Amino acid sequence: MPTHQQELSDKKSQASAWFASLRDTICNAFEGIERSVGSDAKFQRKEWQRSGGGGGVMSVMRGEVFEKVGVNISTVWGEFPDNFAKEIPGTQDNKEFYATGVSLVAHMKSPIVPSVHMNTRFIATQKSWFGGGADLTPAIFFQEDSDHFHGKLKGACDKFDAGYYPKFKEECDRYFYLPHRGEARGIGGIFYDYLNTGSWDADFAFTKEVGLAFLEAFVPLVQKRCHIPWGEKEKEMQLLKRGRYVEFNLLYDRGTKFGLMTGGNTDAILMSLPPEAKWS
Amino acid sequence: MPTHQQELSDKKSQASAWFASLRDTICNAFEGIERSVGSDAKFQRKEWQRSGGGGGVMSVMRGEVFEKVGVNISTVWGEFPDNFAKEIPGTQDNKEFYATGVSLVAHMKSPIVPSVHMNTRFIATQKSWFGGGADLTPAIFFQEDSDHFHGKLKGACDKFDAGYYPKFKEECDRYFYLPHRGEARGIGGIFYDYLNTGSWDADFAFTKEVGLAFLEAFVPLVQKRCHIPWGEKEKEMQLLKRGRYVEFNLLYDRGTKFGLMTGGNTDAILMSLPPEAKWS
Repeated sequence: MPTHQQELSDKKSQASAWFASLRDTICNAFEGIERSVGSDAKFQRKEWQRSGGGGGVMSVMRGEVFEKVGVNISTVWGEFPDNFAKEIPGTQDNKEFYATGVSLVAHMKSPIVPSVHMNTRFIATQKSWFGGGADLTPAIFFQEDSDHFHGKLKGACDKFDAGYYPKFKEECDRYFYLPHRGEARGIGGIFYDYLNTGSWDADFAFTKEVGLAFLEAFVPLVQKRCHIPWGEKEKEMQLLKRGRYVEFNLLYDRGTKFGLMTGGNTDAILMSLPPEAKWS
Repeated sequence: MPTHQQELSDKKSQASAWFASLRDTICNAFEGIERSVGSDAKFQRKEWQRSGGGGGVMSVMRGEVFEKVGVNISTVWGEFPDNFAKEIPGTQDNKEFYATGVSLVAHMKSPIVPSVHMNTRFIATQKSWFGGGADLTPAIFFQEDSDHFHGKLKGACDKFDAGYYPKFKEECDRYFYLPHRGEARGIGGIFYDYLNTGSWDADFAFTKEVGLAFLEAFVPLVQKRCHIPWGEKEKEMQLLKRGRYVEFNLLYDRGTKFGLMTGGNTDAILMSLPPEAKWS
């Protein structure tokens, strides 16, 4: 019979292999969108090592539809710094951690096409859990796009627990909020953290489902909106919205803080920042 | 004989009156630069009130030389939130505070002309002190501009204490640093905080001197550089440098944190952000 350590080690491998495979699926889908508009843009990969343990691979594409999209996978381990450990469950007696995940932010050339963010992760300290979610940030709001996006995420949640969607939607709205502006970052989606129902298999399956649902939620919006003409007025709205995005990510985002506090790769962590932003 | 309370109240009034007067001097000088290039740009003022006590006045100009410059004065008082009070001297037994100051950030149209920041302030809790400084952020470095800027600030310091300049220059370099990039925000200047030598009059006089030296340090650089032609390459360097400026201000700046944590006016606090920035 496998020991607890062997089991945990196997779970870590399964999770990190899934995140890499999801990265491939997403990159292929996004390169396909570029091809559909006659662009030969491709993701460029760049590996990085973390001195405290582990590392990751950044994949970045700059295309005709995707102004800048980053899909990062990382698998890092080591010890949390004291001041940061306090904020993380399961670190009272032992500050060791392991974290593996995939993280994506897409900033689109057209202001009619929404920005999107997706992240799923598995984290182990003396406890272990999954977290993640996906959320949409349009500069220009379309009710039907919002309905489609939320609907696909709801579908993924409902396969697992009827309570997930309302709970994770609310957590998303609460998380992606700029208190100093009294504004939401975007129109939400789902966000979950510290998910450990007691069934690792179910939680892992849910996390996989979220990753795949993200593609179904987002890709049709891009395909539908990327040919619509737009002008300077719409671009200005997008650049100002991106300014808010920058504010959120640098002032509040836990993933950004986690990365910077644990000596992650700065380029990978700040990949989420838009190529260009404005403030009025 | 005046009581300690009366004396402190008088000091607060003197300090806040000075900051308003310095604001006027600076705005006049900057409007003069605009006139010298045939622009009729003027500062627009906007008052704001703080619900916990006090308020401020933002002055913003968008001109031909100054793409966006904000000069804010604020005088606020109240009680620090518990978690923030811990970081501020003189709040162990009483979380009341009073803070008055002037804060300036200029983002220039030409990438040849450096961005600049200046702030001076007087803060009273159960202790009281002055703080402030000025620092330069060029996108393109000119040794002679750097020498001029640092020289003027050194002159102001040397009138008061031969130890000030080396100490405050080093504090500036330490403060305006982005650890996640391993980069300085700009080329420094001076930065001082918790200045209380025992002579309020001397510390106030020094703070006044810094404000006036800032003008002598910066205005000649603008006059010398604002007519030099520049192209897209230089503009791109400026926009990327501004991206770093945004990172510093949102991730690390104590003034930004102070403002957001004490319920200050968001527009005034984030006035420091550039009108446009890029990330590679």
